[in-house]
Formats: sequence, C-alpha cells, structure tokens
Amino acid sequence: MSAFPAPLQRLVQELTKLPSIGEKTATRLALHLLRSDRRDVDLLADALVQLREQIKLCSTCLALTDSDPCPLCSDPQRDPHSLCVIEQPADVMAIERSGQFRGRYHVLHGRLAPLDGIGPEQLRLTELLHRLEGGVITEVVIATNPTVEGEATALYLARLIKPLGVRVTRIAHGLPVGSDVEYADSMTIGHALDGRREM
Amino acid sequence: MSAFPAPLQRLVQELTKLPSIGEKTATRLALHLLRSDRRDVDLLADALVQLREQIKLCSTCLALTDSDPCPLCSDPQRDPHSLCVIEQPADVMAIERSGQFRGRYHVLHGRLAPLDGIGPEQLRLTELLHRLEGGVITEVVIATNPTVEGEATALYLARLIKPLGVRVTRIAHGLPVGSDVEYADSMTIGHALDGRREM
Repeated sequence: MSAFPAPLQRLVQELTKLPSIGEKTATRLALHLLRSDRRDVDLLADALVQLREQIKLCSTCLALTDSDPCPLCSDPQRDPHSLCVIEQPADVMAIERSGQFRGRYHVLHGRLAPLDGIGPEQLRLTELLHRLEGGVITEVVIATNPTVEGEATALYLARLIKPLGVRVTRIAHGLPVGSDVEYADSMTIGHALDGRREM
Repeated sequence: MSAFPAPLQRLVQELTKLPSIGEKTATRLALHLLRSDRRDVDLLADALVQLREQIKLCSTCLALTDSDPCPLCSDPQRDPHSLCVIEQPADVMAIERSGQFRGRYHVLHGRLAPLDGIGPEQLRLTELLHRLEGGVITEVVIATNPTVEGEATALYLARLIKPLGVRVTRIAHGLPVGSDVEYADSMTIGHALDGRREM
C-alpha cells in the first residue's frame, strides 16, 4: 500500500480499526469516498463529531440519548409500573421495534461474567435498586440475553429484586419465528417444550 | 429505528450511503464508534476531512496524490521511457505492489463503454497524447482490465498510439497464480494456451 498518498493511507488505517473492516474493504470505502460528493463526506465527518458530542446516557434509564431524561423516560404515555432490564443500549431499539412493551427500561451496561472479571459491582445495579425504592415499579421484566452469562445475570437479579416485593419475570425462550424445528439446538427445543402454552 | 437518538440515527444514515454497508452493519459500526475511544472517532473524522482537502490528481499522470507532481512522476529512479496506461487510480497501487514495473503511469479515469455513453472524449486521452509527443516514451504498456470494455479500450489505444512510432504492448492474460485449470473459464484457458511460452 506504499503507493497510496498519505491522507488516503491514513483514512484506510482509521477505517480498519472498525469491526469486520479489513484492509481491502477499507481501501474500497476510502476510494469510494474520494469519488463521491464532497458534501456527503463532510456530512459523514460531521455526524461522527456530533455523535460523540451529543450522545450521552439518560440519567434515569442509562440508555443512549441526546436529551436528558430520554424520550422514553419522559413520555407520560409509557407505563411507569413496568420496567424492562436489558444488557446493552442497543437492546432498547430491538425491543422497541417489536412494539410489544409499553413500560420503561433500565440498561445494565453488561452482564455478569466472572471469567472476564465482571461482577455485580461493574453493572449499573445501584441505579436499578434506587429506581425500585420508589415503590412505583410493580414488575421487572428481565430481558438479558439467553446465554449462559445472561441467564446467570437474570438469576442474580431475580434473587436481588424479589425480596423487595416486586414481581420479576423473564422473557420467553423458544424457537425464533421463521426457524426450523429440524435445525434448532436441543437446548432451545427443551425450552420451547417447557414453555408450551394452551392453544 | 425510531428509538435511536437523532445523532446516532444520522450517523447510521450517512454510513449506509457507503458501498456494501446496510442498515445492520451501519448500526453496528455506529454503536462501536460510540463505545470506542473518543480520540479514535476524532482521528477518523479528521482523516475524512483531510482526504478531500489534500488529495488531488497529479497533473502529469492523473493518479491520486497529495503532492504535484506525484512521487512516482518525480522519482528520477523510474524509467521515463516506459508508460503504463491504466483505467483507475487504484490500479497504480495494485501494479506497484507487484514490484514488476519500474516505469511511469497514466490514468485514463475510465474505459470505453458506449452503452454507458462513455466515448474517447470522456477518457484522459489528450493528456496521454501530449505526453507521447515529447518523444521520450518508447513503450506504452496497456494494463486496462481484461474485460470486454477494457479490451476495446486497449484496441482503441493501440490504433491511436502505434502510428506515433511508439511500441504498444498489452499485459498477459492467462490463469491467475494459485487458481485451478479445472475451474477456469474457457476464455481464460484459450488466452493461456494462446500466450504459452517456451520453458
């Protein structure tokens, strides 16, 4: 790549720092940007700068937001009695897209992972317990990932919250819509059978 | 995606304008940038801005450069008698990486494509003929792509340049290194047989 002019080389180098972008893809993107409208490149650069300047965590639910409290926390239409606990900010968007949850959120910013040195003190539990103290929340829906670590986190949370007299539920495990029983793993089939419902 | 804060949504939108980046990849990249070092994001934004400000075309060979004439055109070590004609600026890097060419370059910025309305007047031929006028160049190596349009461009160039008394050569077609005779297309095998050499 030594034949590249320095500014092009620099951009390629910065792009390869992104996940799943290797040198070939980075080169293709950089050359595309060189050919494209100058305005588009400026918009992208500006969006990058604005991102870090404007996005912060909501002081209530700890989700990503550009206004504090975030639109979800300040929306009077949302049910204040139901709280959904999730691992990552991106999970808010995923659950919102389903349109099936009308309560509020709390982002843990992680899951228990003792092997990676992540214990309860690394999660945003103080903020969660503080919100439960108010007595307004009557149900906590735990929507951590259906992985070993997500399950462990869910169990830990259930033990922590139940003594406060709050109902604790866990999102259902089972076969994803559009999938195939034949190719599902046995753990998932086991969960699907276990959680069967009257038709 | 309505649950995304506006600055994040804007970055996702700008990223999806890039080739082969859909909404899912753009979202993943944007969330990665949110989590990563602020310095890295600034470096990327800066590299984007610098790219458009500093990169221009070399006035001699029309390749991408941040200094005019470009390092290849101003390098006294390069053979001034041999000129390699290519379609795109990125082809310079590809040929330089091979280390097999020690002459200079000329970028056409396209190939003849009558169906797309690209005729000889859309290519940088005036500049090419101007360089050949000097009489210093004794061989033109045509390295347009081995496609129908690249071949047509090569033929057109040969007819244009030969009358000037300059030797015109074409890079070889054949089986790429590491490929398989069994799976090669018949055109490539035909070219490979046609261009066979004494061992």
